[in-house]
Amino acid sequence: MKKIPVIVTLKEEVSDPEGTVITHSLHSTGHTSIQSVRCGKYFELEVPEDMNQEEIEAVCRDVLSNPVIEEYRILTEEKI
Amino acid sequence: MKKIPVIVTLKEEVSDPEGTVITHSLHSTGHTSIQSVRCGKYFELEVPEDMNQEEIEAVCRDVLSNPVIEEYRILTEEKI
Repeated sequence: MKKIPVIVTLKEEVSDPEGTVITHSLHSTGHTSIQSVRCGKYFELEVPEDMNQEEIEAVCRDVLSNPVIEEYRILTEEKI
Repeated sequence: MKKIPVIVTLKEEVSDPEGTVITHSLHSTGHTSIQSVRCGKYFELEVPEDMNQEEIEAVCRDVLSNPVIEEYRILTEEKI
C-alpha cells in the first residue's frame, strides 16, 4: 500500500469566501502581515502499490473535485 | 510576497467520518481498489518574503488547526 496526497483548490478566478473570512479573522487577531488566505481540501488515498495513475486521476477528477470550479494536484509521496 | 502551503489533517488516532463516506462512495462507484481516504484541509497563505517562521507557525497552530485533534504541516513552496 502507498499513500497518495491530493490537494483540491478553487480555480484562481473563483472567489473564496471562506478564505476571506479567515483572512479577516487573522487581521482582527493581530496577524496583519498575512496578505490573504485561500482554502482548499486535502485527501490522502491509500491505494495498492501497483495502482495505475489513470484510475487515480479519474478519482481526483470525477469524485474528489468539481472540475467546473476546482483543480486538483497529486503530490508525490516524498513531498509530504 | 510568497505563498506558504499548509496542510491540516486529523491526527492518526482520530476517526474521520467524512473520509469513510468518501471511501464508501468510491467503492460503490467501482473504485474498489482504493483502500481508504482520509480528509483534511489545505490553506495557501500569501505573506511577505521576510515574514518570520515563528509567526507562520503560530497562525497554523492557533488559527488554522485545532491542536487537540489535528496536526499541521507547512510545505515548502517548491513542493506544490
